[in-house]
Amino acid sequence: MKLTEMSREQLLEFKNKVQEEYDGYKAQGLALNMARGKPAAEQLDLTEGLLTCVSKSSDCFDDNGVDCRNYGGLDGIPAAKKLFAPMLGVSEKELIVFGNSSLNIMYDTIAKYLLFGVDEESKPWRDQGKIKWLCPVPGYDRHFLICQKFGIEMINIPTDENGPDMDMIEKLVAEDDSIKGIWCVPMYANPTGVTYSDEVVKRFANMKTKASDFRIFWDNAYCVHHLTDTPDKLLNILDECKAAGNPERVVMFASTSKISYAGAGVAIMGASEANIKYILSLMTVQTIGHDKINQLRHVKFFGDFEGLKEHMKKHKALIAPRFEVVLDTLDKELGDLGVAEWTKPNGGYFVSFNAMNGTAKRIVTLCKEAGVVLTGAGATFPYGKDPEDKNIRVAPTYPPVEELKIAAKLFTVCVKLASAEKLLAE
Amino acid sequence: MKLTEMSREQLLEFKNKVQEEYDGYKAQGLALNMARGKPAAEQLDLTEGLLTCVSKSSDCFDDNGVDCRNYGGLDGIPAAKKLFAPMLGVSEKELIVFGNSSLNIMYDTIAKYLLFGVDEESKPWRDQGKIKWLCPVPGYDRHFLICQKFGIEMINIPTDENGPDMDMIEKLVAEDDSIKGIWCVPMYANPTGVTYSDEVVKRFANMKTKASDFRIFWDNAYCVHHLTDTPDKLLNILDECKAAGNPERVVMFASTSKISYAGAGVAIMGASEANIKYILSLMTVQTIGHDKINQLRHVKFFGDFEGLKEHMKKHKALIAPRFEVVLDTLDKELGDLGVAEWTKPNGGYFVSFNAMNGTAKRIVTLCKEAGVVLTGAGATFPYGKDPEDKNIRVAPTYPPVEELKIAAKLFTVCVKLASAEKLLAE
Repeated sequence: MKLTEMSREQLLEFKNKVQEEYDGYKAQGLALNMARGKPAAEQLDLTEGLLTCVSKSSDCFDDNGVDCRNYGGLDGIPAAKKLFAPMLGVSEKELIVFGNSSLNIMYDTIAKYLLFGVDEESKPWRDQGKIKWLCPVPGYDRHFLICQKFGIEMINIPTDENGPDMDMIEKLVAEDDSIKGIWCVPMYANPTGVTYSDEVVKRFANMKTKASDFRIFWDNAYCVHHLTDTPDKLLNILDECKAAGNPERVVMFASTSKISYAGAGVAIMGASEANIKYILSLMTVQTIGHDKINQLRHVKFFGDFEGLKEHMKKHKALIAPRFEVVLDTLDKELGDLGVAEWTKPNGGYFVSFNAMNGTAKRIVTLCKEAGVVLTGAGATFPYGKDPEDKNIRVAPTYPPVEELKIAAKLFTVCVKLASAEKLLAE
Repeated sequence: MKLTEMSREQLLEFKNKVQEEYDGYKAQGLALNMARGKPAAEQLDLTEGLLTCVSKSSDCFDDNGVDCRNYGGLDGIPAAKKLFAPMLGVSEKELIVFGNSSLNIMYDTIAKYLLFGVDEESKPWRDQGKIKWLCPVPGYDRHFLICQKFGIEMINIPTDENGPDMDMIEKLVAEDDSIKGIWCVPMYANPTGVTYSDEVVKRFANMKTKASDFRIFWDNAYCVHHLTDTPDKLLNILDECKAAGNPERVVMFASTSKISYAGAGVAIMGASEANIKYILSLMTVQTIGHDKINQLRHVKFFGDFEGLKEHMKKHKALIAPRFEVVLDTLDKELGDLGVAEWTKPNGGYFVSFNAMNGTAKRIVTLCKEAGVVLTGAGATFPYGKDPEDKNIRVAPTYPPVEELKIAAKLFTVCVKLASAEKLLAE
């Protein structure tokens, strides 16, 4: 029975029962975590071979005889480019292989555009007054934090099952040349799990932007992170941008943080040759090169992109059951109550949960007090402000399955409790 | 006999003989390199154990049970801090352990100061109009390139055997608040090999700066890179700055690029707790953490700082003979000619060579045409402009000894030729 259809008495009774259940959990002194999209230990174990595939000095040379232990290789070793180019659907000339963090590259690319402009000709963003950024919501908190720190004003863009609201985006970028960029997680988006439709990708490539130095930050973090045997498909935005005559519009990012090691993987950037050449011209004063031995490890371990994709099936085998636990629990406990909606993603790392308006913070607090840490309510929105206080990002991958079962169940108890409180207060 | 004391006839004869010798080398089609301070392959072989000391999933946990394969650890793993803190003479709270490149951290720290200021209160450097930087010369080309790229005006500061000219520095920083920083390689400086005297360090710590947001970039790249059994000693500048009431003045850098692997080492930053806290507050939006497995490898391989220092003796055993080859050749071939001076460093990676004014470019060109690559003449000065066109940085570490002998000899031939040409043209 839907909570909204209950009488006040029924609701009170419901609430009291749930409160009792909640108190029971609280008494257990749990310490569980569904906050961050962290791989579980078993997932990390899958790439144990990375630790040994370069184990002698003589292993440290790449195909071209380059000693990966020494300086050099600003754009990454050729073998690593060959491995990772298909991941972003670019040529090897359109790719740079970095160190371990794609977030770091995104931050640094914005810092470069602020200080130097997006190319040789254009003015540094920092010298163009107040600049703005489009933020499809709900989205990735760390993206938003970068803009916030840099003082870039963020504009919320609603999203649906096809991706962000392109009508709104097209209108905004056509009119306002202070809008310099947009965050996109185009496949299995964080946290909604949505993969952008072909139409959305094409409209991104073709739209008119008033700012000639507008850039799409295409964070394809989950491009090989499928949860089903019938994966979503994403159109290649660089190809579309080229076809539309806007080859420089997009900069793409990905990493192996959720393929090999979250803390010791390899990150990549893909973009037009002109964009890559420009970024390298700035990087050349910044560093002599990233960790080439770790790049080589990835080459030796995965072999080629087919090998990498095969490897991801092992992740799926570990992760998919965890998503099932969460989704089954949500269905079973909340399916009939009419107080929440949530996503059933085909890939990625999250379930996006929309509670009743005005209850997300309360749910997160209730969970925390009973020992389950969730991403802070509001974190999926710029400035940490969810205007409707309803979205919660649930991350099922990290806890062991048995713990996850308890955490998911307790989460639903908190949702029930917060919903009943809210309805009773109305 | 000194070239300057020769008659024109003697000089012509000398020149013709040297020209013949030079042509003989040229005919050999050599391809040798004394350009960059790169470790030789044998040096890199010394840390082969790094490749295997973390070889199982169960090896990936630090002392506190942290899984180094996963996300986190923004400031570096505690064990790595413990290992590296004594290298800069700081406490573990005054240290951050990064990825593989200290150059990258220096670039990034300036980028942060430009965009955010040096602390919560101060204005971003980028918003203070034209800013300037002090550059002890000759110095490290990559330092200068960072300033040049960021549009920071560089001011040359002469150096002697005690370090930079402190009279000049004190006067400049006391008068001009647009001077925001200085590059220092305080020990076995690149390229002069000079270690700053105690007096110089104390004056740096105590001097009055008109700019309250002035910072010393203390690149202690060669702090454990001794070439003799009686190493130079450098005063701890952070201690001196604290004693002088200027604890925030200095930011120190180092890396294991010339200890473990030039391309896959670990870099560190040391500074006051307040400085470190501030930098971490900016880093937290930039990355989730650096490669902790590689940090752990360094901990397991070196054990502690004593172990690291012991290890450096093996480098010395490989490098010192290479310096001898170069210095012996210079002595033997040029000692009596009165046309050049050069350093005999107790550590570091370079011999700084001063030819006759106006001949450095010519010497480098002659070397290049005969197959020996040197750092470009002028590279050791801001904007690549050596006002006297006399300094050349010689890097003896990379070539095998037999090649180095040839390269060093050929270098002296080129010096002789260029000097004779110059004297004959006067």
